[in-house]
Amino acid sequence: MSAKIAKLLSRTNPSEQQIIKAWVRTRRSSKKFSFLEINDGSCLQNLQVIADAALENYSEIKKLTIGSAVIIKGNLVASQGSGQKWELLAKEIEVVSQAPESYPLQKKRHSDEFLRGIAHLRPRTNKYGACFRIRSAQTHAIHRFFDDKGFFCLHTPVITGSDCEGAGELFQVDSPGGAFFGKPVNLTVSGQLAAEMFALALGTVYTFGPSFRAENSNTARHAAEFWMVEPEMAFCDLQACMDLAQELIKYLVQDINQTCAEDIALFKRFVDKTLDNTLAIIEGSDFDRITYKNAVEILTKASHKFEYPMAWGRDLQTEHERFLAEQYFQKPVFVYDYPKSIKPFYMRCNADNLTVAAMDLLVPRIGELIGGSQREERLEVLEERMHSSGLDCNEYQWYLDSRRYGSVPHSGFGLGFERLLMLVTGITNIRDVLPFPRTPGNIDF
Amino acid sequence: MSAKIAKLLSRTNPSEQQIIKAWVRTRRSSKKFSFLEINDGSCLQNLQVIADAALENYSEIKKLTIGSAVIIKGNLVASQGSGQKWELLAKEIEVVSQAPESYPLQKKRHSDEFLRGIAHLRPRTNKYGACFRIRSAQTHAIHRFFDDKGFFCLHTPVITGSDCEGAGELFQVDSPGGAFFGKPVNLTVSGQLAAEMFALALGTVYTFGPSFRAENSNTARHAAEFWMVEPEMAFCDLQACMDLAQELIKYLVQDINQTCAEDIALFKRFVDKTLDNTLAIIEGSDFDRITYKNAVEILTKASHKFEYPMAWGRDLQTEHERFLAEQYFQKPVFVYDYPKSIKPFYMRCNADNLTVAAMDLLVPRIGELIGGSQREERLEVLEERMHSSGLDCNEYQWYLDSRRYGSVPHSGFGLGFERLLMLVTGITNIRDVLPFPRTPGNIDF
Repeated sequence: MSAKIAKLLSRTNPSEQQIIKAWVRTRRSSKKFSFLEINDGSCLQNLQVIADAALENYSEIKKLTIGSAVIIKGNLVASQGSGQKWELLAKEIEVVSQAPESYPLQKKRHSDEFLRGIAHLRPRTNKYGACFRIRSAQTHAIHRFFDDKGFFCLHTPVITGSDCEGAGELFQVDSPGGAFFGKPVNLTVSGQLAAEMFALALGTVYTFGPSFRAENSNTARHAAEFWMVEPEMAFCDLQACMDLAQELIKYLVQDINQTCAEDIALFKRFVDKTLDNTLAIIEGSDFDRITYKNAVEILTKASHKFEYPMAWGRDLQTEHERFLAEQYFQKPVFVYDYPKSIKPFYMRCNADNLTVAAMDLLVPRIGELIGGSQREERLEVLEERMHSSGLDCNEYQWYLDSRRYGSVPHSGFGLGFERLLMLVTGITNIRDVLPFPRTPGNIDF
Repeated sequence: MSAKIAKLLSRTNPSEQQIIKAWVRTRRSSKKFSFLEINDGSCLQNLQVIADAALENYSEIKKLTIGSAVIIKGNLVASQGSGQKWELLAKEIEVVSQAPESYPLQKKRHSDEFLRGIAHLRPRTNKYGACFRIRSAQTHAIHRFFDDKGFFCLHTPVITGSDCEGAGELFQVDSPGGAFFGKPVNLTVSGQLAAEMFALALGTVYTFGPSFRAENSNTARHAAEFWMVEPEMAFCDLQACMDLAQELIKYLVQDINQTCAEDIALFKRFVDKTLDNTLAIIEGSDFDRITYKNAVEILTKASHKFEYPMAWGRDLQTEHERFLAEQYFQKPVFVYDYPKSIKPFYMRCNADNLTVAAMDLLVPRIGELIGGSQREERLEVLEERMHSSGLDCNEYQWYLDSRRYGSVPHSGFGLGFERLLMLVTGITNIRDVLPFPRTPGNIDF
């Protein structure tokens, strides 16, 4: 049985007869010894290997190139050098494959842009290896958070005939013979409507899956395909919805510090010097909560010069969102009770008949991280809003059934998973937290 | 704070001042009392509630219909009736919404076909509530299994420019303005090629996401959109790949018996009388492993009459798969080393140059549950197979890079999640384990 390097490096005792399967990151050779640093992707740190010239195939070993694959048998002993606790005294080194000198990931700094062009190789670098291990750890943390709370995981369809946001550019889906489904269909922009049906049956559910926007905007914050987390809770109002959102974000940041300490340290040190502080603020403080009305007052009174001046009835722009979270509150802040006119039909009308029970969570550097609402549970009010939004109620009878039979106040939100990863790593381009990003013109790999 | 019924029913002590939010499943009323059974979706079992006629709004309570939503405050006490341990003495009952008599889920048996037509309401029934709680529990178990083993969770793209299987009917994706990506794109049939890139960087990874087939076949075993689990392991041969597949299936069956005991009992009792036995066999035995050649021998010698007679070079049909698993071996069986001519280009050529290192796991009632292979890691062999499969190697340079730089033996498989759910619940139609199934002509909800 072979061992992963992450396991080996966390040992408290030396051990003999270990087998490690990994790739060469560096090699220094002399007549007497070769020092290899090898990595198997299980953690950031390399394992240092000492290969004695007495090894049978030493002539092969001392030609090992970066990127080559090896299987090494040896003894794990306390390291005599500084910088690592353990090193491996090799008894046998099998060269599985020798990488040619053309291997693009030679030992030097590569730009993010260059690495985007070789997205199939970039997880072999320190930074992107760490990034995608963190992505995996946060995925597991999300499932654990909801499972512990008794939420059921729900897989809502990707191919759908309805358009939840009532706006947004949709990708259409076609089949070879055409008319597979007998009507036009598209890729989902949200699993919310489906999740509502299940929340009203199972109580509390969440989705975690891909979502799509065909917006032709080439920004560092938008991708055509991204992952969303969407919890939906029966018997839940907007304040309780914000409580859950805050608890989730704090849990995820706490988890990253605990389970990804080594990987996240790389980002704190090399990617964003303010990251440590940002994460500490999220973990340590309650998020603020202000009404949209209050937000407009703050923004119109601010001495800060905005490209788009703010006024009641307008949507918040990223510059406004960032000003509120970064400069004014200097921590995450919920803005709630937005004008009805700028929000979708399914959000619950407030008593003022001007605003709806919507909320956005704004965070430093990113702007909007979460968007949610209490849903309109009153059948007549909902039907009227659908009418005035130009939706055909006949196509949504199944959705309206949930307001006919056992309707209850319920709420939910959507968390953009890539934006969360940008928040917790300090990475500024969404293309760099997606394994194979899809943006306008980019479909390689 | 309100409590979930699942939590309440597992209490060991009585407790006062509980708040429960749920829906009415049945009501029996007399002048002195009403007995309600309420359910909040957290578990199969209902909570029995006793409402005294002295309650202020008793006239409203005794008219409560099936499907109505209530919030009840009361004391949890030992039940005096049989059939349940606890019951709730109501102090207050708030009627949140009264369901009209037209509510489709009245207290009687409904056919699966009828319930498919109201897929938005069916999770409110005992059977489908249980089914989707099991679906959630198995989802969590899959993530836990791989996380515990140090596999990283990977989100491979849904929109893709490549066709992994080299066959199969693809859904095409279009954007409003057209040419969003600058070339024809489709919905993924497998995340394998992308997962290979990450396995060769992080060691062991898995995907768990939606997958698509535009096959116009209206069977009980095919859906246009379904979820797949695809682990991919560096430094792994076909035998180790089968080891992992067996371990995963046994783990999932064990988990269902532990975490879903109440829900799975419903299926054992009412859906499939042989289910208990099937699950016990999976948990208790090692799966058999035979070569394709051996399978052909068994099938040609069998006295059983097949619709499609078997011969070397032909693909196994469902009738063959089921015969092997149900009648011949009477347990799950791996068939491996298939003819090269019937398998995709990426599978590793065996020394005989006639077969490839492919494997399928066949299980009772379902047939193929898992398909996997050792991947061709030798650059020249792979290029030749791509050529003879009619693929343009120029479009797959990124994929071939993984065989240029640090290539190692590696393997993986795909598990159809819905087929797993059919196996463990005894449900015979794939439409009944998907929240909102997509099949030819069906895109409702």
